[in-house]
Amino acid sequence: MLKVGLLGAGRIAGVHATAVSSHPGSTLVAVSDINPAAAEKLAGQYGAQARSTDAILGDKAIDAVLIASSTDTHSDLIQAATAAGKAVLCEKPVDLSLARALACQKAAALTGRPVMIGFNRRFDPNFSALKAAADNGEIGKSELLSITSFDPAPPPISYIKVSGGLFRDMMIHDFDMATFIMGATPVAVTAVGSSIVDRAIGEAGDVDTAVVTLTYADGRIAVIKNSRRAVYGYDQRLELLGSDGLLQAQNMLENTVVKSTTTGVTGAKPTYFFLERYMPAYAAEWAAFVEAINAGNTPPVTLQDGVTALAMAEAATISARSGTPVRLGSVLGE
Amino acid sequence: MLKVGLLGAGRIAGVHATAVSSHPGSTLVAVSDINPAAAEKLAGQYGAQARSTDAILGDKAIDAVLIASSTDTHSDLIQAATAAGKAVLCEKPVDLSLARALACQKAAALTGRPVMIGFNRRFDPNFSALKAAADNGEIGKSELLSITSFDPAPPPISYIKVSGGLFRDMMIHDFDMATFIMGATPVAVTAVGSSIVDRAIGEAGDVDTAVVTLTYADGRIAVIKNSRRAVYGYDQRLELLGSDGLLQAQNMLENTVVKSTTTGVTGAKPTYFFLERYMPAYAAEWAAFVEAINAGNTPPVTLQDGVTALAMAEAATISARSGTPVRLGSVLGE
Amino acid sequence: MLKVGLLGAGRIAGVHATAVSSHPGSTLVAVSDINPAAAEKLAGQYGAQARSTDAILGDKAIDAVLIASSTDTHSDLIQAATAAGKAVLCEKPVDLSLARALACQKAAALTGRPVMIGFNRRFDPNFSALKAAADNGEIGKSELLSITSFDPAPPPISYIKVSGGLFRDMMIHDFDMATFIMGATPVAVTAVGSSIVDRAIGEAGDVDTAVVTLTYADGRIAVIKNSRRAVYGYDQRLELLGSDGLLQAQNMLENTVVKSTTTGVTGAKPTYFFLERYMPAYAAEWAAFVEAINAGNTPPVTLQDGVTALAMAEAATISARSGTPVRLGSVLGE
Amino acid sequence: MLKVGLLGAGRIAGVHATAVSSHPGSTLVAVSDINPAAAEKLAGQYGAQARSTDAILGDKAIDAVLIASSTDTHSDLIQAATAAGKAVLCEKPVDLSLARALACQKAAALTGRPVMIGFNRRFDPNFSALKAAADNGEIGKSELLSITSFDPAPPPISYIKVSGGLFRDMMIHDFDMATFIMGATPVAVTAVGSSIVDRAIGEAGDVDTAVVTLTYADGRIAVIKNSRRAVYGYDQRLELLGSDGLLQAQNMLENTVVKSTTTGVTGAKPTYFFLERYMPAYAAEWAAFVEAINAGNTPPVTLQDGVTALAMAEAATISARSGTPVRLGSVLGE
Repeated sequence: MLKVGLLGAGRIAGVHATAVSSHPGSTLVAVSDINPAAAEKLAGQYGAQARSTDAILGDKAIDAVLIASSTDTHSDLIQAATAAGKAVLCEKPVDLSLARALACQKAAALTGRPVMIGFNRRFDPNFSALKAAADNGEIGKSELLSITSFDPAPPPISYIKVSGGLFRDMMIHDFDMATFIMGATPVAVTAVGSSIVDRAIGEAGDVDTAVVTLTYADGRIAVIKNSRRAVYGYDQRLELLGSDGLLQAQNMLENTVVKSTTTGVTGAKPTYFFLERYMPAYAAEWAAFVEAINAGNTPPVTLQDGVTALAMAEAATISARSGTPVRLGSVLGE
Repeated sequence: MLKVGLLGAGRIAGVHATAVSSHPGSTLVAVSDINPAAAEKLAGQYGAQARSTDAILGDKAIDAVLIASSTDTHSDLIQAATAAGKAVLCEKPVDLSLARALACQKAAALTGRPVMIGFNRRFDPNFSALKAAADNGEIGKSELLSITSFDPAPPPISYIKVSGGLFRDMMIHDFDMATFIMGATPVAVTAVGSSIVDRAIGEAGDVDTAVVTLTYADGRIAVIKNSRRAVYGYDQRLELLGSDGLLQAQNMLENTVVKSTTTGVTGAKPTYFFLERYMPAYAAEWAAFVEAINAGNTPPVTLQDGVTALAMAEAATISARSGTPVRLGSVLGE
Repeated sequence: MLKVGLLGAGRIAGVHATAVSSHPGSTLVAVSDINPAAAEKLAGQYGAQARSTDAILGDKAIDAVLIASSTDTHSDLIQAATAAGKAVLCEKPVDLSLARALACQKAAALTGRPVMIGFNRRFDPNFSALKAAADNGEIGKSELLSITSFDPAPPPISYIKVSGGLFRDMMIHDFDMATFIMGATPVAVTAVGSSIVDRAIGEAGDVDTAVVTLTYADGRIAVIKNSRRAVYGYDQRLELLGSDGLLQAQNMLENTVVKSTTTGVTGAKPTYFFLERYMPAYAAEWAAFVEAINAGNTPPVTLQDGVTALAMAEAATISARSGTPVRLGSVLGE
Repeated sequence: MLKVGLLGAGRIAGVHATAVSSHPGSTLVAVSDINPAAAEKLAGQYGAQARSTDAILGDKAIDAVLIASSTDTHSDLIQAATAAGKAVLCEKPVDLSLARALACQKAAALTGRPVMIGFNRRFDPNFSALKAAADNGEIGKSELLSITSFDPAPPPISYIKVSGGLFRDMMIHDFDMATFIMGATPVAVTAVGSSIVDRAIGEAGDVDTAVVTLTYADGRIAVIKNSRRAVYGYDQRLELLGSDGLLQAQNMLENTVVKSTTTGVTGAKPTYFFLERYMPAYAAEWAAFVEAINAGNTPPVTLQDGVTALAMAEAATISARSGTPVRLGSVLGE
């Protein structure tokens, strides 16, 4: 039975708390938060204790910590937790600064403790089924990947300003998805962006609509489309063209009801946002972490994957400004 | 080159005229109609002559006639045309009276001339692909057939009164479809009907909504659903359950555009009515007739098929009134 | 907090135990089973106690019992539990004998305690969305309902023999669905059945494929299709034709991946069987029960609904043998 | 009645001959080809005469010419035909050389005769329905366009070598589609290409897989994906994201049959290639030409549109080599 400390008690921490508690091989022991009342409340709901982060990291009986606090704390907490001997599952991104993320990676590596980054979409049953079919050779050799990833509505401008920008905050999921599906890191990143959804987002120095092209050493190409606004719901789709066919992972719909009237044939919308769409993925992600830790295996999403996604975001940010392709190696100082 | 006389110059005759003219192996030579002006007009459009029916039947240079005049003339014209040595393609139904249809069948058989009944739906590319897949064993042994067949809107009451009733006028197509897909004649017919769409249809002695169950000697079952009104368009679908799977032929849509908005995901409606849906089927039907005549083969839909469908309609009409199953043999005097 | 005793510890009881435990307004207090070890195991999993049924019914601290034991115990346990003052949620069917079900209904009514019958499909999010759209007038006045309900594979012959037959065991769900959607009880039931899937089922006196037509006083019609075998998975669909359109509730699929190759465009199969398909419905059913009990309302599925479904099954069983329609009133002695 | 001369007698000329002959307002009068036998054969099929191109251009009775000869003859024939006073419908592209196309445009403009370029996809009923819905404001303000355009199989290397390259030969259709849907010309073109389908295509100096991003002055973005090989058929889809929703035009399928078995739920493939998919578009294109000519209106696709598409192809060709965005103005010498 894996004993787990949860760092953070916000909305996404609540999702993780359910996953930890529901898993037959793990128990939620303690919760910390900068807001002690929030920690109390969440801990109480699952029969755990509210403690300080230090107390959790110092408790030898706790095997693993799940970091779901704010982004700026991630890299420090990964370092502290691995130094304290804990296995770690940390929400994405590792950090908004690539330099800090690389330093964190180096420090964590020295401890030898396993760190998994919470790219939950890899565990979505649709995307993982597509990946399995591709790996199984069902469409031959893969050639061209397309990722459509639209949010239902833009966040407030106050959030935009501290988010690190669309590429680091939103598309980072899609960068990791490209790495997951392609099983490789791109050579170069070319980005085009626009603030056509909301001019205020542009005034805040960010884009809300973007297309990024990734090129791979073997000639494969991936293209990612992001928009901060798809009024019909969370639009999360993949298409992978291969030498023997095409694989598509389509949206999940709210229900299967179809209505035919004089105005057309209408089905339900996609599930509204990430909690609705990816709830099963959070449980599957946690199960994969528990399984890896118990077996002594490397977790299925590593700190390296977190760094790679961040480097891709960094390259895209530069490319969107310069208008020219950016070699991934150049942002990594290679 | 098959030389063809067309008996009738109404709307459906126009559809046939196009098919005859477009086929590389047939020419439209002459058109007759009780309204000579209509015959003139249609003939002129395709470089044919307007003549009397007698003149067409008496012209040794004409190889085949296509009967597209009113239903009450069908059986007489089949007899006259076959007696005159013509190959015949006759619109459904053979007759509204089963007795007259049987007499017609007997008379035509004596001439040895081929007669095909225009059950055009057998030539719909979707239904014929389903039939081919079933015959190819793709779902194993067939067990349960469902036919959904809804018209977009009821005809005028004046038409209802002379139509012979829903079972003989509308469901007769579906009876033939059941015979086509099942490759057999049912043992018994059980019908339930209602005039829920329009009370006036009930007052005219007919139903507008009906469910008919067909049972076959080997235990297979078919069910046909008819409604005179589906406001979203012509709803024409098949489902065949077999020991190894299910085959469905779905509706054809007006186009492939899908719109996702806050109110749902909306696609186009089914094609509006039989001319839109079955236009390719009329051309394929004619091609099948030409091919059979040229090869000296029995046409793919026979006068016997026309009689069988009419007998099923007769049985359904009786069953809908009595509420009890009617053996098909009983209406055939067997 | 509703304190709940669970009678039965088999597979479906386990599903209910999860629902009771996960609901914020109910606690699982005790579990009984004719196999005490099974009760111990299930109770242990959820922090409840294993007790005898009598002990559970006699415990004043227990507010409600959930009856998930074998069918032959249902009516006795409903009577005993209501007599002991408990609110009851009982798995379908009430009984295989209509006479016993009617007696149970009478006895339970005298106690004034609420009894809900577990027709879980009413709580399927797809079917309940269809019902809501229909009640909301989105397709005008309803006219023709079609229910497709196929199991993936037939049960063992040993089960068939004690099941009460397809109409009481399997189609009873669909009879209740018809009552739910149509909001009315049919006047007459006409059934056709066959043992085409497995001859041994016929030799055991049952059918494995059946079509039942229901007629309603206002002219509406419903048709139910059942097969014990759909090799592609659990096929559970509804279609409701109305004056202003059509509503369909389609199958839920295992995932949204679509593969296009030279052999066609292939999507995932429907979810395999009732546990996969209806798991969310069991939770929603329990929530509806808790809500009704807490509010002092009549539960959304009553003992009367259970009796109605059983009467429809009785009528269908008779009709399938006689070949003639059976008035629902006649089996109820009216 | 528009009297038409057809220049060219190859496969696509045959398609146009059918459209011209079937249209009630036009007649095919004469056909020319560098291979006189081919011209004879095609002319004979439609009751027209085989003549020399000069004879056709010199015949005052001929109102319009349809240029369907090889690409290298297009610009010369447009100039000669307009100089001879004919209205012109010319197959795409105007020329492989942007300079020659611009010169042709200038010369033709001086004659004042209408010239339409055969971007047939604008007349596909699905794409034109999407365009109409967008223009009708059904998804608000458009923001992001995606075009998926895959051929079923690459052409022979011999063709690749003279084709002008993927951007001028294949993607030129998609460049025009972007212009059609967006109603504007992009500011810059960024292209990424690869010869991953067939190394021999790369050795011939071309790419077989490409992604092109177009940016517009108002911040809108379009992305085009091309592959020379989609083994499942001709993949031709559009997606347009707007402020109020998403419009998609999906593939047309060979039929509507769906098969559910233990291996999944399989539908038909997309129609195989451009003749199958766009046959109705060729007829609609011709009808639009006839209508414009008769009304004295500018044709719906102009020589300017042909030049714009060619300039986009030129810019993409340069961008794919340099890796940097290319301003459209720069290739037009602006």
